[in-house]
Amino acid sequence: MKSRRMRMSEYPKYRAPQPIEIENRVWPTRRIRSMPLCVPVDLRDGNQAFAKPMNVETKIRYFEMLCRIGFREIEVAYPASSGEEFEFVRRLIGEGLIPDGVRINVLTAARKDLIDRTVASLAGVRQATVHCYIATSELHREFVFGKTSGEIMQTAVDGTRMIAEAVDAAGMRDRIRYEFSPEEFSDSEVGAIVELAEAVREAWKPRGKRDFVLNLPATVERRPPYEFADMIESFCRSYTGRNETTLSVHTHNDQGCAVAAAEMAVLAGADRVEGTLAGHGERTGNMDLITFILNLKSRGVEPGLDFSKLPEIAAFIEEVSEIGIHPRAPYTGGLVFTAFSGTHQDAIRKGMAQRKEIGERFRQGWKMPYLHIDPADVGRNYDGLIRINSQSGKGGVAYVLESVYGISVPKGMQPLVAKAVQAEAEATGSEITPSEVYRIFREKVAARNGRVTVAGFRLQRPAPGAADKTEVDLELEAGGERFSVSGTGGGPIEAAAAAFHDCGAVPPFQVEMYSEHAIGRGAGAEAAAFIGIRPSGSDRIVYGAGIDVNINLAAIHAIANAINHIGDN
Amino acid sequence: MKSRRMRMSEYPKYRAPQPIEIENRVWPTRRIRSMPLCVPVDLRDGNQAFAKPMNVETKIRYFEMLCRIGFREIEVAYPASSGEEFEFVRRLIGEGLIPDGVRINVLTAARKDLIDRTVASLAGVRQATVHCYIATSELHREFVFGKTSGEIMQTAVDGTRMIAEAVDAAGMRDRIRYEFSPEEFSDSEVGAIVELAEAVREAWKPRGKRDFVLNLPATVERRPPYEFADMIESFCRSYTGRNETTLSVHTHNDQGCAVAAAEMAVLAGADRVEGTLAGHGERTGNMDLITFILNLKSRGVEPGLDFSKLPEIAAFIEEVSEIGIHPRAPYTGGLVFTAFSGTHQDAIRKGMAQRKEIGERFRQGWKMPYLHIDPADVGRNYDGLIRINSQSGKGGVAYVLESVYGISVPKGMQPLVAKAVQAEAEATGSEITPSEVYRIFREKVAARNGRVTVAGFRLQRPAPGAADKTEVDLELEAGGERFSVSGTGGGPIEAAAAAFHDCGAVPPFQVEMYSEHAIGRGAGAEAAAFIGIRPSGSDRIVYGAGIDVNINLAAIHAIANAINHIGDN
Repeated sequence: MKSRRMRMSEYPKYRAPQPIEIENRVWPTRRIRSMPLCVPVDLRDGNQAFAKPMNVETKIRYFEMLCRIGFREIEVAYPASSGEEFEFVRRLIGEGLIPDGVRINVLTAARKDLIDRTVASLAGVRQATVHCYIATSELHREFVFGKTSGEIMQTAVDGTRMIAEAVDAAGMRDRIRYEFSPEEFSDSEVGAIVELAEAVREAWKPRGKRDFVLNLPATVERRPPYEFADMIESFCRSYTGRNETTLSVHTHNDQGCAVAAAEMAVLAGADRVEGTLAGHGERTGNMDLITFILNLKSRGVEPGLDFSKLPEIAAFIEEVSEIGIHPRAPYTGGLVFTAFSGTHQDAIRKGMAQRKEIGERFRQGWKMPYLHIDPADVGRNYDGLIRINSQSGKGGVAYVLESVYGISVPKGMQPLVAKAVQAEAEATGSEITPSEVYRIFREKVAARNGRVTVAGFRLQRPAPGAADKTEVDLELEAGGERFSVSGTGGGPIEAAAAAFHDCGAVPPFQVEMYSEHAIGRGAGAEAAAFIGIRPSGSDRIVYGAGIDVNINLAAIHAIANAINHIGDN
Repeated sequence: MKSRRMRMSEYPKYRAPQPIEIENRVWPTRRIRSMPLCVPVDLRDGNQAFAKPMNVETKIRYFEMLCRIGFREIEVAYPASSGEEFEFVRRLIGEGLIPDGVRINVLTAARKDLIDRTVASLAGVRQATVHCYIATSELHREFVFGKTSGEIMQTAVDGTRMIAEAVDAAGMRDRIRYEFSPEEFSDSEVGAIVELAEAVREAWKPRGKRDFVLNLPATVERRPPYEFADMIESFCRSYTGRNETTLSVHTHNDQGCAVAAAEMAVLAGADRVEGTLAGHGERTGNMDLITFILNLKSRGVEPGLDFSKLPEIAAFIEEVSEIGIHPRAPYTGGLVFTAFSGTHQDAIRKGMAQRKEIGERFRQGWKMPYLHIDPADVGRNYDGLIRINSQSGKGGVAYVLESVYGISVPKGMQPLVAKAVQAEAEATGSEITPSEVYRIFREKVAARNGRVTVAGFRLQRPAPGAADKTEVDLELEAGGERFSVSGTGGGPIEAAAAAFHDCGAVPPFQVEMYSEHAIGRGAGAEAAAFIGIRPSGSDRIVYGAGIDVNINLAAIHAIANAINHIGDN
């Protein structure tokens, strides 16, 4: 044993994959202008990797969901592998569950008994594809099968012929197409696969491009996506049957690049991609079709597939897989439209407010800071775009108060509000929910008690035709004392300010800004008032807020609140 | 409102991003031969996107973990953004928590007060980088800042000068490097960023390549990875300061391609990448550094970073983020080394048994069907490589019995065992654990009760020197009757077979194969015996298994078991 181990260590543990010989590659110069055919293999390749695979009833629900999204070809089963898989195909066909225009696809290995049972499972189908696979890598050939490449070729060609014969014998040749997958393509030699693919195509004798799908899998992601694209382009240059072949790819995610690999393979010549919704499948899973499709949509390529109810789709996938979708999974995750940081929140708030102007500027219906697509397009709403923690800033806090509670804090006052929220976030170490932001705003920022408190209030509007003055009488509490003060002015703010000045305990100030708006609707709604005052001798404006059902009293509380904030940083 | 909406609909909702002008791109022809500098930004960009950001104590633990892995530069905070961020930097420096050779990196916006506080946070540091950012996209410029590109340029240059001055004033110029990020680079115009970067570099006056990091972020992943690489290559062609600039990229994952984008940017010229472990960060997160690094390792590029305790690292990240790592996340997920399907299991079983031969064939220490890297390299063991559900096959079931229980089921008998396991998997719809596989094997396959049951047994070995025959007496129960039978032969198997033949209730057969081995170790261990018999007139071998502490009785039970399996499919 010892000497064996020593021999092993002569080699590096890992090596770069065999280089792909290609000059002047064209794929990086291309762009995708139309959607490739997207084929979900959730019911077969995805399902096999669930600890608890779906039962027939659940598979039927899943199949119906895929049809509702709009997929036109759906791989459904490996019917010869188990009674359940066979039964599922029979029920789809027998119960008329396959919509017009939808083609089912069934997998088989290249063995007579399996092929016969596969074709038997399809009796009565309107349109289907039989999908045969064989692994073609040297690793598989030598160490799993113990076969020569000639023998592998023979198995593939024999299997293809057997399928053609079985389909003919069943009188179904018009309805059945053929898909062939050289498994571990990306770990195989391109020239050998071209030869194999030519022979398989010859054996099937396609009746046109759609009648034969050649699917080139990265069964294990053993190469970076640009090398996979090189392989596809290299394959396309040598393969003579492009006119009678739909070229497909099937990528896995062992290096986290399955989506990139599929997209770049389309640039390199693939017409069709296989994947699963949310990327389930053996190990790291298959290429996530949702991400692949919505990526292209986000760049203006219309998918013809409906993901407007993505949260429902995601919930169903979570239910059947018993695996939660990661909160950061593109498009489907719970956090993908959320900004926590202050600068992001500020930019989103400004962008959302100028949505129309941005659209006109960029001549497109959606472009937004930090939001890759419009959440509404995938069934999400705008709640929770901005969430508040200790890293959040004034923009985010203002956005939450405005979008959730309809409270428009003036720009100059936003730092004061944010500071109060941040203090609480740091103290608790937790996220601050919108209702907590609201509570902090009311209790900490717009607090009624402080250096000066308004304990009573009476307003006398000028009698009609009288001199144009409003009079305000206030009961104030300050420094433990009570003051009865009065003031007059052109309006209630001016009059109230004069009344505050009348109280010796209040430093002199000027009112610099005022805004007020209703919170919510109806006559009984509260009003939020905001006042900016400049203490005499200062060049800094200090803000205050007041909330009350009486709009005048709200403003008066706001003045008192501003006075109380003098000296805050 | 109505007319506005109608105007909006003149434009498509989404458009492809602005094309990148580039001819004869070189990046697709390159390969990565050495590791770029990898800089984790978990403590800043990652942390800001946790609902509950880390407190100072947790950040210290996290920083120490990053140091143990071997990272040499670590972004730690935005010190001017909050008291807590400032305190963390002060504690790292003040308590001597930064190992020799590790550089911390702190973020600031280009504003005098923030810069001063940032530089103040670094007092006493041995080596650090100050990182300044400004968003440069038109979207940000026009709709968030309301500034011209000249004003943005001025802000960037002014901010850079202020940092240089503050660092000089603090007498820290020898210890502080500078990083500048034009945020939303991938949504900006390359020519404008080149101009901006030249001006910023001029303002900093780098003392060499390492003294100035120019970091080009895909703040939102708005482009496919090949376009991002085109941008980087295009940038490198025009930018004149490569000799005094470390070129860095920082990618986000909105289109699920952040890892691909970072890798392809390295091909295009980047020397340095930023990301986070497990890909945390705003929305879909930052580029996952674990995947990026282990991808390169899997292709023979030595990272100089230690992920041999990846499960511990993953558990800690789960703890601090309160977000579970997805079971299919490359390298870290619970399922990434698991095969459920029969063909995969069979191939892994064969591959693992020929590990040495495969290594010699491919001149590398690891190459395996369906296993991208050696699980042992990231602190995982080989348990659970194969898990059994209704999609599993004979190879997987045999692997579990062999690897977990040391029971080597002969190849010819494996389908019988798999069938019994599959029946149970389909009936329950659940995963079958190894202990359940073992129970099914003992109770369903190697059952002692059936058509024929061995109720008693006596073996007489030949007396020393006597004729070379063993005699076996059996008490059998069959069809409700009891039979006392005897047989002789060259050994116990032959003698027992003869005894069975002696019983009229048993059809005639021939013993075709026999194997037996101990289960576990020690004298008290049970033995598992396997017998293949061919019923007279049949060309098919029927297998049976027997388990007993007595090796002879195990074999006799195996014969009875095989007889009981005659007629099974």
